[in-house]
Amino acid sequence: MEHHFTPTHYHNTLGPHEPVLRVQPGDTICTTTVDARGYDQHRQQITPRGNPQTGPFFIETAEPGDTLVLHLEHIFPNREYGWCGSHVAENIVDPAYVKYLPDAPLAEWKIDRDRWTATLTGPESKLGELTIPIEPMLGCFGVAPSRRQAISTATSGEYGGNTDYRGFVAGTTVYFPVFEPGALLFLGDGHAAQGCGEIVGSGIEISMDVRVTAHVRKGITIGWPRGEDSEWIFTVGCARPLDQCVQHATTEMLKWLQTDFGLDALGANLLMAQCVRYDLGNIYDPAYTMVCKLPKTVLPPRL
Amino acid sequence: MEHHFTPTHYHNTLGPHEPVLRVQPGDTICTTTVDARGYDQHRQQITPRGNPQTGPFFIETAEPGDTLVLHLEHIFPNREYGWCGSHVAENIVDPAYVKYLPDAPLAEWKIDRDRWTATLTGPESKLGELTIPIEPMLGCFGVAPSRRQAISTATSGEYGGNTDYRGFVAGTTVYFPVFEPGALLFLGDGHAAQGCGEIVGSGIEISMDVRVTAHVRKGITIGWPRGEDSEWIFTVGCARPLDQCVQHATTEMLKWLQTDFGLDALGANLLMAQCVRYDLGNIYDPAYTMVCKLPKTVLPPRL
Amino acid sequence: MEHHFTPTHYHNTLGPHEPVLRVQPGDTICTTTVDARGYDQHRQQITPRGNPQTGPFFIETAEPGDTLVLHLEHIFPNREYGWCGSHVAENIVDPAYVKYLPDAPLAEWKIDRDRWTATLTGPESKLGELTIPIEPMLGCFGVAPSRRQAISTATSGEYGGNTDYRGFVAGTTVYFPVFEPGALLFLGDGHAAQGCGEIVGSGIEISMDVRVTAHVRKGITIGWPRGEDSEWIFTVGCARPLDQCVQHATTEMLKWLQTDFGLDALGANLLMAQCVRYDLGNIYDPAYTMVCKLPKTVLPPRL
Amino acid sequence: MEHHFTPTHYHNTLGPHEPVLRVQPGDTICTTTVDARGYDQHRQQITPRGNPQTGPFFIETAEPGDTLVLHLEHIFPNREYGWCGSHVAENIVDPAYVKYLPDAPLAEWKIDRDRWTATLTGPESKLGELTIPIEPMLGCFGVAPSRRQAISTATSGEYGGNTDYRGFVAGTTVYFPVFEPGALLFLGDGHAAQGCGEIVGSGIEISMDVRVTAHVRKGITIGWPRGEDSEWIFTVGCARPLDQCVQHATTEMLKWLQTDFGLDALGANLLMAQCVRYDLGNIYDPAYTMVCKLPKTVLPPRL
Repeated sequence: MEHHFTPTHYHNTLGPHEPVLRVQPGDTICTTTVDARGYDQHRQQITPRGNPQTGPFFIETAEPGDTLVLHLEHIFPNREYGWCGSHVAENIVDPAYVKYLPDAPLAEWKIDRDRWTATLTGPESKLGELTIPIEPMLGCFGVAPSRRQAISTATSGEYGGNTDYRGFVAGTTVYFPVFEPGALLFLGDGHAAQGCGEIVGSGIEISMDVRVTAHVRKGITIGWPRGEDSEWIFTVGCARPLDQCVQHATTEMLKWLQTDFGLDALGANLLMAQCVRYDLGNIYDPAYTMVCKLPKTVLPPRL
Repeated sequence: MEHHFTPTHYHNTLGPHEPVLRVQPGDTICTTTVDARGYDQHRQQITPRGNPQTGPFFIETAEPGDTLVLHLEHIFPNREYGWCGSHVAENIVDPAYVKYLPDAPLAEWKIDRDRWTATLTGPESKLGELTIPIEPMLGCFGVAPSRRQAISTATSGEYGGNTDYRGFVAGTTVYFPVFEPGALLFLGDGHAAQGCGEIVGSGIEISMDVRVTAHVRKGITIGWPRGEDSEWIFTVGCARPLDQCVQHATTEMLKWLQTDFGLDALGANLLMAQCVRYDLGNIYDPAYTMVCKLPKTVLPPRL
Repeated sequence: MEHHFTPTHYHNTLGPHEPVLRVQPGDTICTTTVDARGYDQHRQQITPRGNPQTGPFFIETAEPGDTLVLHLEHIFPNREYGWCGSHVAENIVDPAYVKYLPDAPLAEWKIDRDRWTATLTGPESKLGELTIPIEPMLGCFGVAPSRRQAISTATSGEYGGNTDYRGFVAGTTVYFPVFEPGALLFLGDGHAAQGCGEIVGSGIEISMDVRVTAHVRKGITIGWPRGEDSEWIFTVGCARPLDQCVQHATTEMLKWLQTDFGLDALGANLLMAQCVRYDLGNIYDPAYTMVCKLPKTVLPPRL
Repeated sequence: MEHHFTPTHYHNTLGPHEPVLRVQPGDTICTTTVDARGYDQHRQQITPRGNPQTGPFFIETAEPGDTLVLHLEHIFPNREYGWCGSHVAENIVDPAYVKYLPDAPLAEWKIDRDRWTATLTGPESKLGELTIPIEPMLGCFGVAPSRRQAISTATSGEYGGNTDYRGFVAGTTVYFPVFEPGALLFLGDGHAAQGCGEIVGSGIEISMDVRVTAHVRKGITIGWPRGEDSEWIFTVGCARPLDQCVQHATTEMLKWLQTDFGLDALGANLLMAQCVRYDLGNIYDPAYTMVCKLPKTVLPPRL
């Protein structure tokens, strides 16, 4: 069944909030998200800034200890205006170089939704007009955290949240651990495109049309978000410093290979040895994100 | 001019050691490197373990403050046997997961140099035989460090060294800052292939045939190794934690864009905002390595 | 006015929960806390484990942007049994040393409340019976966080929480930023004594009698918890890695010196240069804690 | 035997340099050190800046695998002028606060060697004249590193070097692992006083008279510098981030307790649990330093 949901309010935390809609496993949700500052498709601010979230959606049958399966089917800008930060964040350059960062207003981008491009329209610099392809993604989305916490959309964790990972595009399937009855799915913070690491503190921030389909894997417990697309399987680790993100994501992958792909500990380690890849999700938010990946071509058959 | 050099001894530090050969800018050096444990193309150990280095080569005219330009023209295994660690290093998994790492002898790989593949031949595990493409690279190479230091081939820094970055393959050009007269180029630690991060503490370790051509950019001073291939320009940062690697590499890229590509500070920041990519070099050595990249397609013309 | 409050339920998050008592600025609260696993003075488990918190107490007149002043007047064990972890946590030793950590049940301590000592009574080891002085403290306490978050008592932040700092003993005054109306004060996680860093994941965990007096500094906004005793003023930073804790605490101290002690930026920096001291709060929790201190003897008069 | 040695040249690396003097175990060395910028007791610059080292001294009988025992007997300024940095280093404040650090010339201190005080004489600020006690220490000293490395006096490691720890004062005994025949002892970088962490990048930098006595413990191998004074035993860890310093120092202490104090693994862990203390050595140099301490009052008798 396909649900068309128009949000009337938004959340700035992921937590055990009142569901806005209850759906069955296998149902599809078509909805919209506002941009990181609460502006909608008409460039009207309709809610306070801070990655406002659409939802939460209650997925029937999902219980703590299960896994939520989320197919990202459509993520596409519903307006033509995007913006981003105009300098690399202070924590991402050498401390002694902070003083050389430029001081400038937000950068503005014009999105061409037919050509799938974004063009930088200001502020003026020697770079001039820059046009790049768009790769629309969700920067902040996930489920309600453990222990009935309500956690700011500024950060991320086992429950997802503000991972700001370029891989969360249409065509990707995401797996989240379930901590609350119904999982309580939140969606927000669309980026028309984003550099690795979200080093200016934002992608090209924009409001989105979103379509996702949710399933539940009963009795399957995972530790961190996982995902896959046509080429890769991946695990997501969130923490500081980046080293700890890598530890979380790598450990989660070692476990996944042993539970789902029939490998023993030695086989899982040997497979990762020369085949593993890592992506930098973000190095800007309170918790950073790194992603551990394996190409599907080297995987044993799934059990 | 092309020099064919057969090494008679090796170094376990990069430092101001006696040159083994003096070459002119523009000259090509054809030589060999032993594997990380000092074994040569005949699988004979001919020097103590620890990424033994061939060299150093003295590049005439290179003076402190200049930049050494190194074209990696040919890096290819000169034997069919490779080995690697058989479990993820303790520092790369969650501390509480260390006890689940397998205890096994080194893994062994058979290299097929016609098909450019490597096949895992042991130890036995549920993974069975795994065949992957080879991408021959140098794990540890660089120039003599600053201040007349002699630094172990276990680690890395502004002078290069044990960066263990998958991008250092034939076809890549590398730029090193020069700290000693003649630059003093060292070459070693070949990997037939390597996973991102060198998470088992090694790539597929192997002895290599190497051909490189060296040039000198007089009066051009850089802070960290840089590189480029047909698609990307990149900068290399080495430190712990990974966060600091990112700071070094990102700062170096911001500087490069302003000195060589005609951008002002704002333009350099705006370009990196949504176009930057990062690679994880290694997360195993005493200093880790991250690489900051930009696709050549978005670069302004070089000055 | 002095309030005697007997808790009937506990919280495992610090958040915007229903107050259990409303008190006026200047009022004193006498209450009790259970130990980290929810056991009370009779060694009965009366609530689930995880640093259960007594409260929250609503301090009248406190508004977001104000500062809560909390005098810790009495913190003393109300039973004779304490316990602690029996090995250093895996993240606090070299990764390759994890396998040498002993596997043993919780250690048990007998508290002599007349002599102010704790004696280790098990498990058996070559250390034998060890008696040390007690220094009763609160490991986890604070106020409701910003943005209406509800955050697990496992961690800490600008709002306090699980700082596990040895300096939070009777005689110390603590300052917390106020994020919610009434500040919403939580108290819990008593330690009869604690090593620096809480390296076994616990102090000597025990239930406590607690007496505190709360005041409000209207219109005074601080960024991180601050404190003082007869000898020191201090600031508290919570994050990972420890480096970032130091950044937070040091920055907060530089600000404090300039707003309250009449120093300019240069004077504040010069004072800290050779007089600053740091304490390690904890290196175990999800966020670590470092404390930046200055002796009162070198401070200019408070404005 | 007591040797009076007047240096004629200095080193900016710790490495396998030609010894300036050979002494027997049990001999005492009386010498001088210049300040971090190479200025001597007459405020004349006699060698380039960068923590120039007096030595190396060859201690007869010391072989790799032994331990050098160094009694710091006298460390005292031999002039009345000291200097230090005038603002907290950029890496020690929040990245967004870097822009608020003052820009000022080096601070100057007048040392009163009779009263054991230092008085800040400039630059002018609202702090005015500040007088503090001196606690003369060595910031950078140690032995030649492993693998015939020569490592800059900017940093530190298992061999000692630029630890900048306030505990290295007269009355302390230091233990260094020996990596080269003769150990090759270097001495330099005196501080009349220093704040914890060396947060302005320097203590009160000054030239010193130094008297030390060296012994050798044959066949006793340690991993990191250790020390003791009348009240404490301690271990030193150097790395980045601070977390890793703590790992090194804590692991070294666990080992020490088991080899020298008759404890089993469980006893060593239980002793450290509630008795351990940590000091921040420095958070400025390329490698930071943390120190792990235990009070002698809780130690079992030494074997």
